[in-house]
Formats: sequence, structure tokens, C-alpha cells
Amino acid sequence: MDREKLLAAVKQQVTDHRYQHILGVMETSIQLARQYGANEKKAEIAAILHDYCKFWPEDKLRKIIKRTPQIPKDLLDYDKELWHAPVGAEVAKQELGIQDEKILNAIRYHTSGRERMKKLEKVVCLADYIEPNRIFPGVEELRELAKQDMDAALIKAFGNTITFLVNRGKKVYPLTVMARNSLLSEKNAIRRTD
Amino acid sequence: MDREKLLAAVKQQVTDHRYQHILGVMETSIQLARQYGANEKKAEIAAILHDYCKFWPEDKLRKIIKRTPQIPKDLLDYDKELWHAPVGAEVAKQELGIQDEKILNAIRYHTSGRERMKKLEKVVCLADYIEPNRIFPGVEELRELAKQDMDAALIKAFGNTITFLVNRGKKVYPLTVMARNSLLSEKNAIRRTD
Repeated sequence: MDREKLLAAVKQQVTDHRYQHILGVMETSIQLARQYGANEKKAEIAAILHDYCKFWPEDKLRKIIKRTPQIPKDLLDYDKELWHAPVGAEVAKQELGIQDEKILNAIRYHTSGRERMKKLEKVVCLADYIEPNRIFPGVEELRELAKQDMDAALIKAFGNTITFLVNRGKKVYPLTVMARNSLLSEKNAIRRTD
Repeated sequence: MDREKLLAAVKQQVTDHRYQHILGVMETSIQLARQYGANEKKAEIAAILHDYCKFWPEDKLRKIIKRTPQIPKDLLDYDKELWHAPVGAEVAKQELGIQDEKILNAIRYHTSGRERMKKLEKVVCLADYIEPNRIFPGVEELRELAKQDMDAALIKAFGNTITFLVNRGKKVYPLTVMARNSLLSEKNAIRRTD
């Protein structure tokens, strides 16, 4: 499917407000991919599809998580906000014919992150935080940081998510902590070889 | 070894300041054990020994971690502040003759916490945060909470540790996040059956 067909397919799945967000993530992903040397076309497709299942009913998401061997079952113990990402990757593969594993992983990990994230995964994950429609305390700082250093921006973004959840008495998905730890380790390794 | 011998052994391993902290953890552990129905004698022994290796040289701690199969090696990728706890449990067993697994686990997990913590582990871990010599922002709130609800106090304490590390750009040991998640899950399970 080409870009227009994918956009039309997504438009049917989400609210108008969310569709505007998706267009923002698409534009920002293309920019970040260009700046940091990821594949722009793949970034565009992953961004278009990243929230495909955002408004699917909880029961439907739960069923797909349960029946899909690749999706870790511990997700069901955590915030439902995390569910649409791995399910979205599964649906993109099964129903929309996306076979490229890099695109699928960028969809799959766009909310949680993971250890040793690939460049395309970082691009879509960060674009999701900073696309122009996003308004939250600290978003401008993240946008500035994203222009200088994608990893530093992601470390900050994951840190914000972690403290946000802790301050609200919510559980924190361990993979997000591990994603942030992994980025910090990479940074330290780079510093040591400087 | 009885209490006096253990105290004398510990006194040789730590600074005077740290020894005062250990006495504080001992008193607070006994109080918490009494209030929440853990074994007071075991709480006392675990508290006396919890910081036995606190000032051991980094190299010595690293060697013991490397040669001890039971100690997870990923600890070496995290803050050295975490190392003395599992090493302390090993030393308590090998050199001080402590065989009781409950006591050893209370020493082992007093800094990191872990999933599904036992009562004795919670007692020593929380006492370490709130003993009378501790001074940090929010410690009074923790002390008050500890009088009402040990799990709620630990959730708060782990949350403080997590946000402290995130705000300082440090890695967060995943087990601490999992300890907090586990306590939150237990609380929700209790609420659901109320």
C-alpha cells in the first residue's frame, strides 16, 4: 500500500484529533530520519501506522495480545496505554501487508521503547513525544534537545514518562526503564572512547 | 553469634557515622517487625548486618559478585551503591555463619527491593529509609506513612529513589521498579477483594 492508501486506512480507525497527531508524527519522523540518517520512507510508514489501534476496544486488544506468541503477556499487567503499540505492529503485518521488520519494530516499541533501540525506532518514538500538536510541560525543551542529540532527547522523554507515572502512583513498565538505561549506557560507552 | 558479637563485628567494618545508622536501622526494624508481625529477632540480626560490606573496596565487591553464581551479573552495570547488599548476604553466610534464608534475603534485597518481597525484607528495607538519623526531603512523610501502612511507605520510598535517579540522569535498577510495581499490584488485589 502506498502512503495515501495507508493514510486513508488509518483515518478510518481514529478520531480527527488523533489523525492530526499522526500527521504531526509523520512530518517529525521524516525530519528526524533525515537529520539522523534513518530511512525516511520507512519512518513515514511506521509513523502513519503507529497509532492504528489506539482506539480499539480494550477487549479486542487483550484478545490479540493473548493469542499472539510474540507479544509479552506481562503487558496485560500494565497500563492499557501500552497495548496498542505491539498490537498495531501485529495488525500492520497481518492486515496491511507490512513485512519490513524495522517498520514493524518502530510501531511495536513506539510507546514502551526497548533495550538497544534501532535508529528507526528512536525516530518514531521521539517524534511521538515532540510532534507539533503535543502540549505538555517540558515539550519545548525536548524539541530543542531533539535538534542536537536524539539519544539525549529520548533519555529525557523516557525520564519524564517514568517520573510522571511514579508521581501518579502508577506502575512503570520495566522495558521503558531498560530502554532509558540502555541509552545511558550507550552514551557512556561513546564518552569513554572519545 | 549473638547480637553483641555481631555488633562488634560490624563496628570494625564501618565508620562511626555508619554504625550509628546501623543502630537506628536495628531499632526501627524491631519496631516495624513488632507492628507488622515479622520475626523481631531475625529483623534485628538482618538490620545489624545489612551494611556490613558498605565500605569494602569496589574491586573486592566486584570480585565477589563475579564469583558468586547467585548474584546477578547485571548489577555490575548499575550504581555501586547496590553492590554491598547481595555481597553482604554472601559474607553473612560464609563468614558469619548466618544460615537463615529469610535473614539473608532481608540483607540481600535491602537496597534494590525485589518482586513479591517478604515481610522481613520490607521491614529492613523500609527501616533503612526512615531510621531516626536519616535526613532527606520527605523523610517525615515516610515515617508517618510507615506507622499506617508499610507497603504504602515502601511504594513511596522506592518512588522517591526512582525519581531521584531519573532527575540526576542516572540509570535505574529494574528490580527496584519491579519491587514497586509488585507492591502496587498487591495493593490493587487487596482493594479488589475488599
